[in-house]
Amino acid sequence: MTPEETKELLPHKTDEAANNCVCKTDLQSRNSLIVSQAVNRGIFTSNASPATRRICFILGEEDEPKAPLLFTELDELFHVNEKELQWKETARWIKFEEKIEEGGERWSKPHVTTLPLHSLFELRTCIERGTLLFDLEASNFKEILETIVSNEITNGNLKNVLKEKVMYVLLRNHRHHIKKSRMQTMIDLWMNVSCANQSAPLNYNTTADFTNEISEKPLQEQLNNKFKKQIPEGAEATNVLVGEVDFLDKPFVAFVRLKEAVILGALTEVPLPTRFLFILLGPKAKAMAYHQIGRAVATLLTDELFHVVAFKAKSREDLLAGIDEFLDEVTVLPPGKWDPTLRIAPPKILPSPHKRKSMYSHSFKVPMHKGSHIHHEERYGSNLHVAEDLKRTGKLFGGLISDVKRKAPWFASDFYDALNLQCLSAVLFIYLASVTNAITFGGILGDATDNMQGIIESFLGTAIAGAVFCLFAGQPLTVLGSTGPVLVFERLLFNISSDYQLDYLEFRLWIGIWTAFFCLILVATEASYLIQYFTRFTEEGFCALISFIFIHDAFQKMFNLAEDYPINSDYDVNHVTLYHCSCFPPEAANVTSLFNETSDAGFKPSFVTYNTTSNTESVNWNSLTKQDCLKFGGQLVGETCDYIPDIALISFILFFGTFVCSMSLKNFKTSRYFPAAVRKLISDFSIILTILIFCGVDILVGADTPKLIVPSELKPTNPHRGWFVYPFGGNEWWMCLIAIVPALLVTILVFMDQQITALILNRKEHKLKKGAGFHLDLFWIAILMILTSFMGLPWYVSATVISLAHIDSLKMETTKSAPGVEPTFMGVREQRVTGLLVFILIGLSLCLAPILKYIPLPVLFGIFLYMGVSALSSVQFMDRLKLLLTPAKHQPDLIYLRHVPLRRIHLFTLLQLLCLILLWVLKSTAAAIIFPVMLLALVGVRKAMECVFSRHDLSWLDDAMPEKENKALEEKKTEKAMSNNESEDSEYLYLQKGPEINISVN
Amino acid sequence: MTPEETKELLPHKTDEAANNCVCKTDLQSRNSLIVSQAVNRGIFTSNASPATRRICFILGEEDEPKAPLLFTELDELFHVNEKELQWKETARWIKFEEKIEEGGERWSKPHVTTLPLHSLFELRTCIERGTLLFDLEASNFKEILETIVSNEITNGNLKNVLKEKVMYVLLRNHRHHIKKSRMQTMIDLWMNVSCANQSAPLNYNTTADFTNEISEKPLQEQLNNKFKKQIPEGAEATNVLVGEVDFLDKPFVAFVRLKEAVILGALTEVPLPTRFLFILLGPKAKAMAYHQIGRAVATLLTDELFHVVAFKAKSREDLLAGIDEFLDEVTVLPPGKWDPTLRIAPPKILPSPHKRKSMYSHSFKVPMHKGSHIHHEERYGSNLHVAEDLKRTGKLFGGLISDVKRKAPWFASDFYDALNLQCLSAVLFIYLASVTNAITFGGILGDATDNMQGIIESFLGTAIAGAVFCLFAGQPLTVLGSTGPVLVFERLLFNISSDYQLDYLEFRLWIGIWTAFFCLILVATEASYLIQYFTRFTEEGFCALISFIFIHDAFQKMFNLAEDYPINSDYDVNHVTLYHCSCFPPEAANVTSLFNETSDAGFKPSFVTYNTTSNTESVNWNSLTKQDCLKFGGQLVGETCDYIPDIALISFILFFGTFVCSMSLKNFKTSRYFPAAVRKLISDFSIILTILIFCGVDILVGADTPKLIVPSELKPTNPHRGWFVYPFGGNEWWMCLIAIVPALLVTILVFMDQQITALILNRKEHKLKKGAGFHLDLFWIAILMILTSFMGLPWYVSATVISLAHIDSLKMETTKSAPGVEPTFMGVREQRVTGLLVFILIGLSLCLAPILKYIPLPVLFGIFLYMGVSALSSVQFMDRLKLLLTPAKHQPDLIYLRHVPLRRIHLFTLLQLLCLILLWVLKSTAAAIIFPVMLLALVGVRKAMECVFSRHDLSWLDDAMPEKENKALEEKKTEKAMSNNESEDSEYLYLQKGPEINISVN
Repeated sequence: MTPEETKELLPHKTDEAANNCVCKTDLQSRNSLIVSQAVNRGIFTSNASPATRRICFILGEEDEPKAPLLFTELDELFHVNEKELQWKETARWIKFEEKIEEGGERWSKPHVTTLPLHSLFELRTCIERGTLLFDLEASNFKEILETIVSNEITNGNLKNVLKEKVMYVLLRNHRHHIKKSRMQTMIDLWMNVSCANQSAPLNYNTTADFTNEISEKPLQEQLNNKFKKQIPEGAEATNVLVGEVDFLDKPFVAFVRLKEAVILGALTEVPLPTRFLFILLGPKAKAMAYHQIGRAVATLLTDELFHVVAFKAKSREDLLAGIDEFLDEVTVLPPGKWDPTLRIAPPKILPSPHKRKSMYSHSFKVPMHKGSHIHHEERYGSNLHVAEDLKRTGKLFGGLISDVKRKAPWFASDFYDALNLQCLSAVLFIYLASVTNAITFGGILGDATDNMQGIIESFLGTAIAGAVFCLFAGQPLTVLGSTGPVLVFERLLFNISSDYQLDYLEFRLWIGIWTAFFCLILVATEASYLIQYFTRFTEEGFCALISFIFIHDAFQKMFNLAEDYPINSDYDVNHVTLYHCSCFPPEAANVTSLFNETSDAGFKPSFVTYNTTSNTESVNWNSLTKQDCLKFGGQLVGETCDYIPDIALISFILFFGTFVCSMSLKNFKTSRYFPAAVRKLISDFSIILTILIFCGVDILVGADTPKLIVPSELKPTNPHRGWFVYPFGGNEWWMCLIAIVPALLVTILVFMDQQITALILNRKEHKLKKGAGFHLDLFWIAILMILTSFMGLPWYVSATVISLAHIDSLKMETTKSAPGVEPTFMGVREQRVTGLLVFILIGLSLCLAPILKYIPLPVLFGIFLYMGVSALSSVQFMDRLKLLLTPAKHQPDLIYLRHVPLRRIHLFTLLQLLCLILLWVLKSTAAAIIFPVMLLALVGVRKAMECVFSRHDLSWLDDAMPEKENKALEEKKTEKAMSNNESEDSEYLYLQKGPEINISVN
Repeated sequence: MTPEETKELLPHKTDEAANNCVCKTDLQSRNSLIVSQAVNRGIFTSNASPATRRICFILGEEDEPKAPLLFTELDELFHVNEKELQWKETARWIKFEEKIEEGGERWSKPHVTTLPLHSLFELRTCIERGTLLFDLEASNFKEILETIVSNEITNGNLKNVLKEKVMYVLLRNHRHHIKKSRMQTMIDLWMNVSCANQSAPLNYNTTADFTNEISEKPLQEQLNNKFKKQIPEGAEATNVLVGEVDFLDKPFVAFVRLKEAVILGALTEVPLPTRFLFILLGPKAKAMAYHQIGRAVATLLTDELFHVVAFKAKSREDLLAGIDEFLDEVTVLPPGKWDPTLRIAPPKILPSPHKRKSMYSHSFKVPMHKGSHIHHEERYGSNLHVAEDLKRTGKLFGGLISDVKRKAPWFASDFYDALNLQCLSAVLFIYLASVTNAITFGGILGDATDNMQGIIESFLGTAIAGAVFCLFAGQPLTVLGSTGPVLVFERLLFNISSDYQLDYLEFRLWIGIWTAFFCLILVATEASYLIQYFTRFTEEGFCALISFIFIHDAFQKMFNLAEDYPINSDYDVNHVTLYHCSCFPPEAANVTSLFNETSDAGFKPSFVTYNTTSNTESVNWNSLTKQDCLKFGGQLVGETCDYIPDIALISFILFFGTFVCSMSLKNFKTSRYFPAAVRKLISDFSIILTILIFCGVDILVGADTPKLIVPSELKPTNPHRGWFVYPFGGNEWWMCLIAIVPALLVTILVFMDQQITALILNRKEHKLKKGAGFHLDLFWIAILMILTSFMGLPWYVSATVISLAHIDSLKMETTKSAPGVEPTFMGVREQRVTGLLVFILIGLSLCLAPILKYIPLPVLFGIFLYMGVSALSSVQFMDRLKLLLTPAKHQPDLIYLRHVPLRRIHLFTLLQLLCLILLWVLKSTAAAIIFPVMLLALVGVRKAMECVFSRHDLSWLDDAMPEKENKALEEKKTEKAMSNNESEDSEYLYLQKGPEINISVN
């Protein structure tokens, strides 16, 4: 069918097409949009334009194979010297533009192409007037050129005498900029020093310079080009050649589509088969215009829609219609308001084809519109979507049974899915994170419980509980660990035990048994369903409170330490000879009291004291150490007795140093220096590194700072306890019933802590395929709680951050992605092996104990502070607190600021702050132990807030609460339909909303 | 002349116009560009399009008064409830777009308008078909509407029966979003808590709700609108009204230009006279299209060119031509590659009209193109432009005389120009900066010269020298101060003096006299001309070396301090009873030696010692202080004698604390919190604040840290010197001749330090009107040097950073600027009063002395470290060093990276680094004193580099050296003409290149 025939046929066909266009390509939605838009868009006409109909017809035409992706290269003609011409690659496209920095001899960063509108119009004229060849069959470049030139001569666009000249110009050699390896660059650098003034660029392929005609085979350099890795499989090339020559007086234009893509010698930077060829040669003095037209062609061919049109076009009119349709969709930047030379970075998220047209179709409630709603819901991780794994069966243990049924078929694959190198690095990384966690929490727990649970217990417990959980739990990607809330509770429990002189471990055993019992009841009654009531408000309240406790405790401990090691502020170097601390026998009490009275007056009495001592005959007292002196009932007298030099100050140095160092190492990831791998390494190992550095500082200074207490062999840290806790004997028998009360509290705590983490891990955005197991997870937490209680080990629940890091280190992504395009996330390697190995390694680390005792406590307190601060900073509540201090002008473009009035946001923040202050005050009183209940009360407060805030405001500041789900969705829908500005939010802004909770380390 | 007549006349007129278009508006250049571009741009045609000709004709037509700026407001029609309609302001423009965040009830940040191209085409259709009324005379809104409606009815676009309905709709009330004061917002916030669930927005003007018809007078709220302050004087309003109604079946469009701008009641947010009115009412279901058309009109009217066209248009065709011309200039963003909903921030620099067209006119060497070159030169502060103030007269003192002649006429105005409140705040700010500088350098200098020159001398010298200089110098904006290089030299000088036992002050006096003599010779021979050889390379080498010395010295001093106050690493709390330090009489020497031998074995011998002492009868020895003991020849024995607890550690805490605190307070300026004024305040006072904070910490801890030594009355810090240095007596007579050698070095130092600063201050970008006085400045530096040498005060040269801060605080800017537009810099208040007042205040501050002695030295060292680090970070050399560590992918988009190959940049950086290392090594050897000569040698190295690097590379990495100036320009020109990518650099990137040197404080 010749183009002319098609053209005649079209009017009839397209009328049909416009009405019931059957679109079978994957551009379906966009295609249907074009129709609906074309029908509804023009405010004066209500029919689709001919171009639109034509495009719709082309796209819907046949079930052809999918058009391959295009790599487009723009080559321009340059003078090498007076006589010689050469083609030089100046830009390339896959999805975004990269240009050669002429001076810098480097590829620019990928950026969004900005074109002068004019160049698109000129391109349209080119296509109107130039030679078009569709489905040309040719095997090499010369053949193609000859066809083009003879065609142009036939059409009268080119004089016959110029044929040779045109051919000569088009066959000149092509120079490509091929990126060298780092090594090669260094060699070049030193080569340069020697042959210094030689300004000829070295890194172009000059091998073909002898003939200066384009090679018929790709050069070695091109074959080795590493850029090939970034081009998706099966891509084809487009070559755009533009240049000015002196012998032409009007432009020579050709657009060629080959029937079969062919590798055209050394034409393309990367040896890809060429499908399209665009040639524009023109008279002198318009190089810039040609350049822009070349860019315009390339941009058109990278467009998903035009690309298909170009593949299927049968006539000039098809192409022109494609250009018109493209023009109809472009966005325009006004002149003078915008610096056209600034490069626009590729967006983090490419707008979906839906989005592309939604501006026009907004006023119509097409089904697609509703679709984008669901999108939004999914994106910011509303709790609603986990509902399917949490459906109530209504039977006892029904949830548990369905969890087991869901997970059992995957059990075998949970082992062989781990056969990948990525898992090995994940093991190492998660091991280090877990060990740090175990050390930190073990140290702090030991400090809090007088070493009833210390480092050794922490290691052992982590290893046992973690391994068991990874083997049998519903979500094996979960990493168990000590968490802040449990730690806070243990501290309170220990304080109460010592206040009432209870046997701590025995009391704790009973609490553990009861807690496990309650948890099993929760499993039986499928109570995990309730987690849907934990909205962002609750999560953040929970997280913020724990973070504040961490920060407060870190400072508290440091101040306690400063009190234990007091500094002598009145120390005077000059009086060093008068300072001393002597041990006096208890008989000398009256003398001492005399001394104490007079010492305030100055230093004179000191020699009196000496005389006194020398008079008494008990010389031995003088040689006693402080400890011995006190043991023998002696008294310490002297100015230096009460003070301990240096320790307090060095502790503060270690404390703040650790905090600052871990913070900056962590943030090193986002810095620009060193390759990404190195940065990631430093960032991942930041805590271990920090601990090592400050242990080094401590050893260097040599001060006797308080250290972590670790037994030298595998026995409980506290010598007064064994490896098994007996349920009776220590306390009165009825204490095991009283334990029900704290057990209820622990149950709330464990339930919240465990399930909030599970909720985050099982979010849809992680694309997990093997399903969740909320009930099964809780079941195992209960079983492990009994075990650890009997052994006197810490209790374990899911550690949010390490678990997230675990998932993160197992992510699968597409390997090939065009420059400027973010790689696509494919899913997570779901298996049980990595977790298992991690905990086996932790078990083996018990022999690390002798090394651990070199860690000073202030360093651990520093890490503690770091954990509190970094957990706080990930909470949206803090962002909103900052908003209170930020003038409206400087406020970041947060999505909820666009949708909720500032005063409502401030009100929400202040209410939240009030809740936290109340919690804090209650926590500081005697009622501290009931703080889990108070946390739960947050759910109630959140519910009450619905009276103060509209559903719309809450939907932006918080997640929706479930039960009125349908009603809420309804309301939202109408609200959104009313506001016609909705579509002006970038999808990227929605992404930023995703909540995150960091409670434990790393 | 009716539109029709004009239309017929046009073809004849425009042909002429296109050829010799006399453009008299200030859009001249752009206008001429349009012609040249239109002639040369189309690649197929070579004639200007009719639209272009028409525009050129319109613009060139008459010498009409300049078209006033427009404030454009877009109002859209909304349903308040089932029945009621209301117009709501949804966006506004002055230069950039601000829209109402519907949900957020706030104005968005100003951003560049992005339009769908489609909406521009639709707007064109609207103009083609709608009612156009030019120069309508009307006094109120109703009158205008009636004219429009009857016109539409006449044209047959509107049925007569709909007249009432249209009028009704158009006369509905308009709701504006008027920003409330902070106070009002807080009141609203609390109001909200009480009347919580009421979701009706409170901050709209609901006063007119009773009638619901638009008020004929502006409302009180509108009159009080603070936004008025941002609208330039004389601006007029454009009202764009778009909306959908159910009774129309085709769009109702009107574009009105009033003959005289009139305030149309409450129509406009700010009561401005309205000039243009655009109305678009249309059938239902196309609200989005109307919205976009409304935005398109507003965008067009904010365009500088279309705006003039709209003012002068006489016919529909004129307007259409304006739209076409606008369309021809727009930039286009391809669909799908770019998220059209992201808002583009206004560029830092608006492209000049030159730039707007240069993309097309690039290949032609139009004169303008050369102009933009000069632009570039100016921008990054090449040294060439100061040449006019430095022209050599060829006579002795010719330069000085011409300086005096140039500055004398301004002398009177230098005083009355200061009559402005801004000067007062400048005085306060610069006073604080100078005082900090005086304290810091005074303290350090005192430390370096054993208090021969201390705080008191520093204050006195600064006051005297500064005041004299401000009164008589060529550039009174210069602030004199102690600078790093001079300080470094003084330290070396003092060390040599003490090594060779010379009288430091007398030797220094002779050096000062000789230096002044050499400087006067330099003045006489007009040597300041040579400063043009100081390129960025020299400046940076100078600055980097000094910075490194600062940093090195700060640490050096801290380590010395740690040695002076050693820490006892073996201290064991338990052994506190066994530690002591006793004073022994000299006779006990043998006993002591015995003790020393045995003490290593343990603590046993201590009681032996006691016994010994108690046996000797000199009981008094025990009660002696350390100082007294040593004075009487006693010996100190004991473990604690050699150690001083706490001091070293608290010093390190103060040192690092000061550094971190000053760094973060300084950076607080760029944070987002608090209003800009508060941030600026904190940032400006950062050093004073930091010093205060850490003095507080020091007092709190109470340790006896080393403090600044300040005499309690006005006498020299060192009691062994007076206020006048006698030229003879201390040293041999021939020392005054030997002083010539160091004097030469000081001369180099002073010349470089003074003139590099002067060069930076007198840069063209500061728009100084009263001219520079390089020779005069140097003359006064020489005179002051003699004075300060005789008085034994420090030497002073221009302090770069404080001087720049001085200029900065006196900058005049346009006060009114549209949202998103940076205010325009108008010039600097050049006067002598602020400087004078600052130095008088410093003189008065001498009575601060008693307070200053509370400042611990480690705090000063911390400030010193801060100064070194912050000076380093402002040097491009550091950026390039960082590039060495940054993978190419992450490198920032620096202008030189676009133009110079990375390996050349690395080579340049490595060579520079090598120079610095050499300098450092030389400085550390005995030859240290000649380091000024070495600095000068950098000029030679830079010269030699021309053999290694091409002129093109150097022009990007460094400034040009002067002598081959013309040749260099020539070369550049050809180079740039060759590369056709030049114009793709943003002007903003050039700005970033501006060098900066920070040597002294603040």
